Amino acid sequence: MKVVITGGAGFLGKKLAQRLLDRGTLVGPSGKQEKIDELVLFDVVQSPVGKGDARVSPIAGDIADRAQVNLLIGNDTDSVFHLAGIVSAGAEADFDLGWRVNLDGTRHVLEACRALPRPARLVFTSSIAVYGGELPNPVTDATILTPRTSYGAQKTACELLINDYTRKGYLDGRALRLPTITVRTGKPNKAASTWASSIIREPLSGIDAVCPVRPDSSMACLSPRRTIDAFIRAHDLPGEALGAYRSLLLSGIAVTAAEMEAAMQRHAGNRKTGKVLWQAEAPTQAIVDGWPKASRGSRADALGFTVDASIDEIVQAFIADDLDEQIRGLG
Amino acid sequence: MKVVITGGAGFLGKKLAQRLLDRGTLVGPSGKQEKIDELVLFDVVQSPVGKGDARVSPIAGDIADRAQVNLLIGNDTDSVFHLAGIVSAGAEADFDLGWRVNLDGTRHVLEACRALPRPARLVFTSSIAVYGGELPNPVTDATILTPRTSYGAQKTACELLINDYTRKGYLDGRALRLPTITVRTGKPNKAASTWASSIIREPLSGIDAVCPVRPDSSMACLSPRRTIDAFIRAHDLPGEALGAYRSLLLSGIAVTAAEMEAAMQRHAGNRKTGKVLWQAEAPTQAIVDGWPKASRGSRADALGFTVDASIDEIVQAFIADDLDEQIRGLG
Repeated sequence: MKVVITGGAGFLGKKLAQRLLDRGTLVGPSGKQEKIDELVLFDVVQSPVGKGDARVSPIAGDIADRAQVNLLIGNDTDSVFHLAGIVSAGAEADFDLGWRVNLDGTRHVLEACRALPRPARLVFTSSIAVYGGELPNPVTDATILTPRTSYGAQKTACELLINDYTRKGYLDGRALRLPTITVRTGKPNKAASTWASSIIREPLSGIDAVCPVRPDSSMACLSPRRTIDAFIRAHDLPGEALGAYRSLLLSGIAVTAAEMEAAMQRHAGNRKTGKVLWQAEAPTQAIVDGWPKASRGSRADALGFTVDASIDEIVQAFIADDLDEQIRGLG
Repeated sequence: MKVVITGGAGFLGKKLAQRLLDRGTLVGPSGKQEKIDELVLFDVVQSPVGKGDARVSPIAGDIADRAQVNLLIGNDTDSVFHLAGIVSAGAEADFDLGWRVNLDGTRHVLEACRALPRPARLVFTSSIAVYGGELPNPVTDATILTPRTSYGAQKTACELLINDYTRKGYLDGRALRLPTITVRTGKPNKAASTWASSIIREPLSGIDAVCPVRPDSSMACLSPRRTIDAFIRAHDLPGEALGAYRSLLLSGIAVTAAEMEAAMQRHAGNRKTGKVLWQAEAPTQAIVDGWPKASRGSRADALGFTVDASIDEIVQAFIADDLDEQIRGLG
């Protein structure tokens, strides 16, 4: 089968691509696990994953260019993981770019899927940024969608499209509302949540990290490991298990910035750690304050999606999976 | 001040236009009632309202044509009532047309507003079709948005855009989730709810009407009179009264098809009435079953939006306001 990952050079895209190459299979058109013959990694830059692996085709391009997307998702495509997008602070900083990439880019992906001879499975990364304003703690499946950022509005609009295309039988969609994914590797990005990785990652790499929000700021957190698990699970579930409503809130545990710093220190061992510099900035604090402090997706829980036991587990997974590479990458 | 109505030749657009011409004022940029100097009525056909009134400019065009919309909403525009759209069954029958007109058309309106020298007030007609599937009765401000039609998904997406443009200060938007408006004049349209007018309007005009749903099918109903009241109220409220979330659910009373028929007969007087022919059709029944049976918009209620006391009041208002014209129009 042929699988396409948009955002295949991004943090989650690379991890997903590697996991798919390691597994070698996904549920295919037969409804059973089938061999992945071709894995297309689309992004603004060439994805470095799977170099020399004959199954992998890295393609650099623009998701907002409809013609490119039509070429990308050709007739033999069975499954699409649509991860490409502009992150929250990026979409906030450039209104037009955010709507163009996050909404119009997704519409191109959906239209390309609709043109396929049989409905492809589509896994879409939505976000708990679909919630905003006065929120219950935790947010749940029953919480109304009132995004307070362009990014959140764009993700919500994409969910609506995916539900409608699925209802019409044009594709077989699944939209996952991701909590804050931590610990991310690489450098800080433009997401307003980037500190939730930086204040763990940088100090463990021996570098100081600025935290632009107050220590008591809480985020709903999920580890990259469990996020990739969730992508595979969402893809492989039969559509009937999801029913008519294809948006799924994933659970994320509540962790404050102070608790992240403490867990980082608890698991640092004999490493010489950098410091967390507390420099709250009003604009970032305002965005983060409008986000959920924790999420409990009972529907996803019942479908077998799993959540990290604690911030300790999250930090330990980062140290086991990513820290060495992180230090080499920056070194 | 200059006011634009899109859908100005439609049922609600015509009533709104006439009401604005009769009133002569709206809250303007000063924050007080100002004289309406120009009323532009945009639609696919020329609006017949206000012929000979120097304030009125009827313009025929396509809301999905960005250049036309940019010309329509020129630099001197103060307020826009954006009513134009493809109705529910129409959007269901033609997927591409629905998304193009209802989503892209609205984006053109929002972009044209964004280009204005000062933020225009924008009143948008959303719909209780934003709700769907397993619903509480009544739906309330706390009900999650799970549309089960393309029309509902499009209205929801437009609400997201209007909230985001408003948050950014690009315009001053207000989106009203309208219950089923009954009694409409004219001929049946492609809306899956058209019978909620037909089974009152046609029999009172001496014509038989087909009802494509079961007698116990309930709709959340609001009269045209109170709908136009709501448009004016939504326009004239200061933005602060609405707060950050600019979508407002309007209350609509629960009325079954059987109760509509009974009220029609109660108020027919000595008219020779047509019959209601009960011919339930599965596709229409399925759409209607997925809609709210009643709506209670506590937030709108608290802001002074009003609801009809009973189906009797709705039928009596139709007889007083519209029946003679309806009979002449068809005669």
